[in-house]
Amino acid sequence: MLLVQKFGGTSMGSLDRIANVASKVIQAREQGHQVVVVVSAMAGETDRLIHMAQAIQSDPDAREYAMLVSTGEQVSMALLAMTLLQRGVPARSYTGYQAGIHTSSAHKKARILNLDCQAIQKDLAAGCVPVIAGFQGVDKQGDITTLGRGGSDTSAVAVAAAIRAQECQIFTDVEGVYTTDPRVVPQARLLEKVTFEEMLEMASLGAKVLQIRAVEFAGKHNVPIRVLSSFKEGKGTLITFEENSGLEQAKVSGIAFNRNEAKITVRGIPDKPGIAASILSPISQANIEVDMIIQNVPVDGIIDFTFTVHRDDFLKTVEIVERVAKKLGAQEISKDNRIAKLSLVGVGMRSHAGIASTMFTALGMEGINIQLIATSEIKISVVVDEKYLELGVRTLHSAFHLDLDRQEAIEEFDPRPDRE
Amino acid sequence: MLLVQKFGGTSMGSLDRIANVASKVIQAREQGHQVVVVVSAMAGETDRLIHMAQAIQSDPDAREYAMLVSTGEQVSMALLAMTLLQRGVPARSYTGYQAGIHTSSAHKKARILNLDCQAIQKDLAAGCVPVIAGFQGVDKQGDITTLGRGGSDTSAVAVAAAIRAQECQIFTDVEGVYTTDPRVVPQARLLEKVTFEEMLEMASLGAKVLQIRAVEFAGKHNVPIRVLSSFKEGKGTLITFEENSGLEQAKVSGIAFNRNEAKITVRGIPDKPGIAASILSPISQANIEVDMIIQNVPVDGIIDFTFTVHRDDFLKTVEIVERVAKKLGAQEISKDNRIAKLSLVGVGMRSHAGIASTMFTALGMEGINIQLIATSEIKISVVVDEKYLELGVRTLHSAFHLDLDRQEAIEEFDPRPDRE
Repeated sequence: MLLVQKFGGTSMGSLDRIANVASKVIQAREQGHQVVVVVSAMAGETDRLIHMAQAIQSDPDAREYAMLVSTGEQVSMALLAMTLLQRGVPARSYTGYQAGIHTSSAHKKARILNLDCQAIQKDLAAGCVPVIAGFQGVDKQGDITTLGRGGSDTSAVAVAAAIRAQECQIFTDVEGVYTTDPRVVPQARLLEKVTFEEMLEMASLGAKVLQIRAVEFAGKHNVPIRVLSSFKEGKGTLITFEENSGLEQAKVSGIAFNRNEAKITVRGIPDKPGIAASILSPISQANIEVDMIIQNVPVDGIIDFTFTVHRDDFLKTVEIVERVAKKLGAQEISKDNRIAKLSLVGVGMRSHAGIASTMFTALGMEGINIQLIATSEIKISVVVDEKYLELGVRTLHSAFHLDLDRQEAIEEFDPRPDRE
Repeated sequence: MLLVQKFGGTSMGSLDRIANVASKVIQAREQGHQVVVVVSAMAGETDRLIHMAQAIQSDPDAREYAMLVSTGEQVSMALLAMTLLQRGVPARSYTGYQAGIHTSSAHKKARILNLDCQAIQKDLAAGCVPVIAGFQGVDKQGDITTLGRGGSDTSAVAVAAAIRAQECQIFTDVEGVYTTDPRVVPQARLLEKVTFEEMLEMASLGAKVLQIRAVEFAGKHNVPIRVLSSFKEGKGTLITFEENSGLEQAKVSGIAFNRNEAKITVRGIPDKPGIAASILSPISQANIEVDMIIQNVPVDGIIDFTFTVHRDDFLKTVEIVERVAKKLGAQEISKDNRIAKLSLVGVGMRSHAGIASTMFTALGMEGINIQLIATSEIKISVVVDEKYLELGVRTLHSAFHLDLDRQEAIEEFDPRPDRE
């Protein structure tokens, strides 16, 4: 198989850990695979660089910022290439521009436009391991760009797509994708397989295993991703297309959650065409992303309009909305940044009304009041008071029978490490 | 004036010091100059990176080594550009390849082949300060190269030559070029002006102010260099072509010295054509540089052949010479790595026999035995026992009236800092 293996900052965090990464690469080669490696900066390094930049400019110049932080991967990739060479494996490291990763020029969030993989293809043909800097590229002007934090996953998937790799393996500090966060629900189960769509919902809803753009990219280019641990043996979780939908078979794969959102409601505005746009346009112009948008049927030609934004954007959003609401003749603005969002994720569940009612009943039984509801093809999300987050997740995890049963638990948590 | 200003690792050693560098740049702009900046890595950073590399490979792979250590300048230049931007000065940083610095591919000692200064010229025309990474370039294959330690001076001079700057200012932690090392001779005097040739001798002989290749480069391309302090105000020392030779006016500019050499004598070899080459060729093939070479007139068709090499190469050289000497039928090899070299440097002194005799007499009066003598157009060097180094330097400094006189000393060491 032709594999792309991506190692994050924790996996590359020290010379010892880099040696461990080299072992993973060598192991894959010994199993007969061809390997291209994509790396992040050593853990802590990117933060060190950002702190220096921010000590100079509170909002560092975009071009210089990319110049600065891109050195993080350049260091780690050179160290890994040296480690492979020292162990007799031909290897060559590449910066984003050397690897031909062309991007847009967007401020700290460049998007990959196209890849020119000649150098990498040549290395592969020669039996050499290319080691590529994640998270960075080059724009039309020849300036270094960065993809934004976590962008290394996207780099890896883009490289995998460009060279038509059979699998893009993302090594992290977790063993794969779980039904929910094991720190909240100890019975959470490792999923063997999820679909891109499910993963997208899980990732965007706060299961911080993979960067959402990487999953989108992988889905779009049909690159199977495997999430697995740098530190423990195991097959991890394969993220791929839905193979057989099982038609009527609804399946809840997991429970995602986050407490990163804030809720704003504009009350008592006239129900006119374009009213939603007049509230949301100035917000998107300020580069603020809106997540949930809820508008109910009008009562006496008057509606309430509710939406959520990232908690970091809360104050800025309130400021904009207050200005706009005045013009629209709104009666009141209510706002709340102490909320949590819980989501059931699973293919084919929308058509099963039973799932939603099981969800609402289970939460109601625990006295958890639902503030907002939103649904999509593969998820049902509710917003609740932040204090109910853990209780809500545990309740849903158990209500949908996701808990690891006792027998499985014993097998899963075999105390002997590295069993053969 | 169009100026290149180069700041070394100590000058760039912290965010505070980078702020000080920005002030120097701004000051020059306020005086009406156009400025291009060349920087080294923050002090300590290059060593940190090299230590990591050596922890992996005792002799790190050349390509990956350059990839790794070139990040040092990339960090410091971005931080300086941000600092300038923060203070309202348009600035853009450039890696070696972005600045169009094309080099050979030689292992850790690449040479600059040519520069493509389009981007820099464009910035200058727009009133922007280009900040360029010293010490690095790119080879024909697109791989990052390094010029070897201290190569930032060479980068600065090369840039100055390419854009036809009127002056290349090298900011260091000393105030300029002194008649000799002030740590050895407290009366050492700051020189206002020296010629390239003199500086070349001073630099190669151990006055560690400027990298020798930078001075060669500057002489070849006629780029005036000014050495001055990052930390103290002052005009420093201008290194330029000899303006008026003063014909008969011999002038001793300074006393250089070093203890980095080792001496090897092959005794009793037949005086045949090609004998010197048969000793020196295998040494140069081993990439060892030979400094002094002395061969006296033959006695009975037999000669003694003496040369010096860097102390680091001593053992390797002895090994080679022992092998060669056997073939040549030499009677004996004598070797000594406890030597010091003292040199008088000055334009026009060769034609003045009086200078040499003053030198030898002064040393003789102090009981310092001269082991070897070598002369060139602008220097007279002697090798003495290492233990006489300081005494020899002080003796010569005083014999040639280089000592700062008392009145000058008082002016020079005015205790009020930053007097206007």
